[in-house]
Amino acid sequence: MSGIWYTEQWSPCTRFAIKVKKQLHSEKTPFQQLDVFESEDYGRFFSLDGYIMITAKDEFVYHDMIVHPAMATNPEIRNVLVIGGGDGGTVRELLRYKSITKIDMVEIDERVVRVCQKYFPETSCGLTDERVNLMFADGLKYVKETDTIYDLIIVDSTDPIGPGEGLFSREFYQNCFRALSDAGILVNQNESPYYEQNRLEMKRAYSKIKEFFPIALAYQFHIPTYASGHWMFGFASKKLHPVKDAKLLDWQALGLETKYYNTKVHTGAFALPNYVLDILKKD
Amino acid sequence: MSGIWYTEQWSPCTRFAIKVKKQLHSEKTPFQQLDVFESEDYGRFFSLDGYIMITAKDEFVYHDMIVHPAMATNPEIRNVLVIGGGDGGTVRELLRYKSITKIDMVEIDERVVRVCQKYFPETSCGLTDERVNLMFADGLKYVKETDTIYDLIIVDSTDPIGPGEGLFSREFYQNCFRALSDAGILVNQNESPYYEQNRLEMKRAYSKIKEFFPIALAYQFHIPTYASGHWMFGFASKKLHPVKDAKLLDWQALGLETKYYNTKVHTGAFALPNYVLDILKKD
Repeated sequence: MSGIWYTEQWSPCTRFAIKVKKQLHSEKTPFQQLDVFESEDYGRFFSLDGYIMITAKDEFVYHDMIVHPAMATNPEIRNVLVIGGGDGGTVRELLRYKSITKIDMVEIDERVVRVCQKYFPETSCGLTDERVNLMFADGLKYVKETDTIYDLIIVDSTDPIGPGEGLFSREFYQNCFRALSDAGILVNQNESPYYEQNRLEMKRAYSKIKEFFPIALAYQFHIPTYASGHWMFGFASKKLHPVKDAKLLDWQALGLETKYYNTKVHTGAFALPNYVLDILKKD
Repeated sequence: MSGIWYTEQWSPCTRFAIKVKKQLHSEKTPFQQLDVFESEDYGRFFSLDGYIMITAKDEFVYHDMIVHPAMATNPEIRNVLVIGGGDGGTVRELLRYKSITKIDMVEIDERVVRVCQKYFPETSCGLTDERVNLMFADGLKYVKETDTIYDLIIVDSTDPIGPGEGLFSREFYQNCFRALSDAGILVNQNESPYYEQNRLEMKRAYSKIKEFFPIALAYQFHIPTYASGHWMFGFASKKLHPVKDAKLLDWQALGLETKYYNTKVHTGAFALPNYVLDILKKD
């Protein structure tokens, strides 16, 4: 039990700790505290303000699930906006679709990108792709002001504290709605049902999104390095239902190899336990 | 961060810790170390040999998922054998089915039952029901010698170390097969895909079961107090497929209220991520 332990507080009464071989980087950026570690079990991982963002061991879960369900729902997606996502994993997965012609990425913190380009080449590799237009700006302000219309907006944000806060606001979701095409889809980091703070944030984000989008659902996946391991994304759209309208055979025909996502997982992810449905339903 | 922390080693490099208000009980039984704690976030919980078995907060996940998928696959189940399950939660869920006429429960460690009857009345409440025949004996030996034929055998065991070891053996699974009716189903605690030790055990149990049962699958659920939060049960049967043959409408017609399980979760639980399928497939 000796050694250096990276320790995360999952709730006031719960801790999750990873033994680290060494700390590779630490800085206070203009927006947040950024730390990079090397570990035996998880490979490299980094945290923002004391919460793990990605580990080499399971980032594939997060990035598969933030990208492929939307892409399998609408294979016609051409123009994508990514808010946040500084590690590049979301863009990496999007770039696997030849049908996508343009990805605007708006990350508020350039330091996250630069540090990930140094320490996580396997996630950040796509950020220099010619289809990617990387901007360092405030996502909240960007969607308010943009004239571009997107087929897909992915909000790959931190929790609603610190720089991620505005990305959980009513105003932001309303502007996302405006910036989406008729078949447009919004996917957002939607917290978790298990611990109280995460649960409140999950419910709050979902309730706000539901005000603007006729179709608003949440879906789940297993990512053991996020609090409770039971994490959620929101799926909202103007007309496409992610299960009923999904083009799963079309997606299979693409022949993409994925380590977590498959078309059964697609449907299964939307099959939420009763207690989660109850939280989302309650007003 | 001060106070008493119950700390579990999820892998050699990973710890999960719960702040406890107090330890309510501690004893070395003839079979294992048994500890009961009171906590703020999880209510009461108990551990065997340093691994959490149930917490008041999320035992419903485990017990919903160990019972209802089999019962929704075959509503004709009458005669059930439970191996292990000393906390009584599995029996509690089984007793909700009026169609079940008899439950034989074989728990090796009487002390687990007695301690749970004292500290966990909400899980152990059914153990004195007249349909339940509670035996304190070795489950491995019991299935070898019994002449009774069961419609369902549930192996609600600890990990394959200590008293649970024999319940992961080829001989045990073979005897379960023999003790099952033509439409018989075996559900077993099948570990987890994420951490190496759990993964090896998951794979080993599954491979052995597959030798005897024409239908052998694994299904997943979210239980945050088990290592990684991504836990599995095995589902094996002589002829019924848990998705294709499931009688989900019949199950819904029963009107049972459940906090985790529902018929969408049923199907979704069998939708395993690619990396888990790969582990199970590899020989």
